[in-house]
Amino acid sequence: MPTLKLTYFDFHGGRGEVARLAFSMGGIEFEDDRIPFSQWADRKPETPFGAIPVLEVDGQPFAQSNGINRYAGKLSGLYPEDLLQAAFCDEAMDAVEDVAAALVGTFSIKDEDEKKAARQALADGPFTNYLRFLSARLDARGGEWFADGRLTVADLKVFLWIRHIRSGNLEHVPTDLADRLAPNLVQHFERVAAHEGVKAYYDGCKS
Amino acid sequence: MPTLKLTYFDFHGGRGEVARLAFSMGGIEFEDDRIPFSQWADRKPETPFGAIPVLEVDGQPFAQSNGINRYAGKLSGLYPEDLLQAAFCDEAMDAVEDVAAALVGTFSIKDEDEKKAARQALADGPFTNYLRFLSARLDARGGEWFADGRLTVADLKVFLWIRHIRSGNLEHVPTDLADRLAPNLVQHFERVAAHEGVKAYYDGCKS
Repeated sequence: MPTLKLTYFDFHGGRGEVARLAFSMGGIEFEDDRIPFSQWADRKPETPFGAIPVLEVDGQPFAQSNGINRYAGKLSGLYPEDLLQAAFCDEAMDAVEDVAAALVGTFSIKDEDEKKAARQALADGPFTNYLRFLSARLDARGGEWFADGRLTVADLKVFLWIRHIRSGNLEHVPTDLADRLAPNLVQHFERVAAHEGVKAYYDGCKS
Repeated sequence: MPTLKLTYFDFHGGRGEVARLAFSMGGIEFEDDRIPFSQWADRKPETPFGAIPVLEVDGQPFAQSNGINRYAGKLSGLYPEDLLQAAFCDEAMDAVEDVAAALVGTFSIKDEDEKKAARQALADGPFTNYLRFLSARLDARGGEWFADGRLTVADLKVFLWIRHIRSGNLEHVPTDLADRLAPNLVQHFERVAAHEGVKAYYDGCKS
């Protein structure tokens, strides 16, 4: 097994969380390098694309969160071997990345009215569209999991997005948006949250 | 071999071109479903995410261009089997997708002054940054190819981006931007263009 170091912000969410979860669920040891927001400006220049997460494998760094998730999923047994199921897994992960990219731009808005308008446009536009798209994809894949008939890194990625929407931490995005538009994604969220490995990870974090 | 149908716009570039190239280079038969721009509005609702490319495998559609590229790359022998080399391949493809996402928003700008300002900001911001990032990644991977010491779908993706910049078809983006900032990416562009399979594809298109 290679020596692994995952660098990301110090909170339970965002683009680095899927890999942390996957490594934990697969029993894969890794160095959990958490950067406090206050230190990010200093460490940004050392990253390959001015962004995190970054995964180092035996000292060789690479970036891009879904590539990291795929790598972590392969090591942890949470990525499909079948070519088509792998493509279904990739599809769901990249779809969440599409909405994440639309969201990221709203974090830096300082003016409160402007931020509210941007978040409402986000909720009514990309979030609404992608909740509906992913809801239909989940149904097309059998209704329970996004690929391979079992939990994969795609399910972890969608789970974290739905959790974020429902958390109340996304100002001006209605917390019941997923519940109203995509009840099957909320059931999926609960299915993932109840998964043994996911429960064990978050139970461990609380202690 | 499954029955394959790739749906994308009818031009030599954009998010569908890597898979067309990969299938051609691997000698993989596929239905090349090209949508004229004039018919896109009618066909958009039938796509899983309101976007193309879409690949159908034995009648089962999936979306997201880099997932399609990975699938096409695996079938065509243009995707690494080694886990870390696969992650390097994914990294370069997702990086180009980051800049593509930044570019897409500028196509719909109608006001000429506004478009010029947006394109200049794109050239000075994301394009400049990602040319430098990818230039450094290519060096870190040995200087010739982005992964696996040979041509993979990552090289095709970067090749098409550099071709786009240098083509003169991207108004208000200096055509010599890559030549000035990332000469090794221009050499890489020429390396890919001279590759037997790539040459054969475009020679076939001209006839």
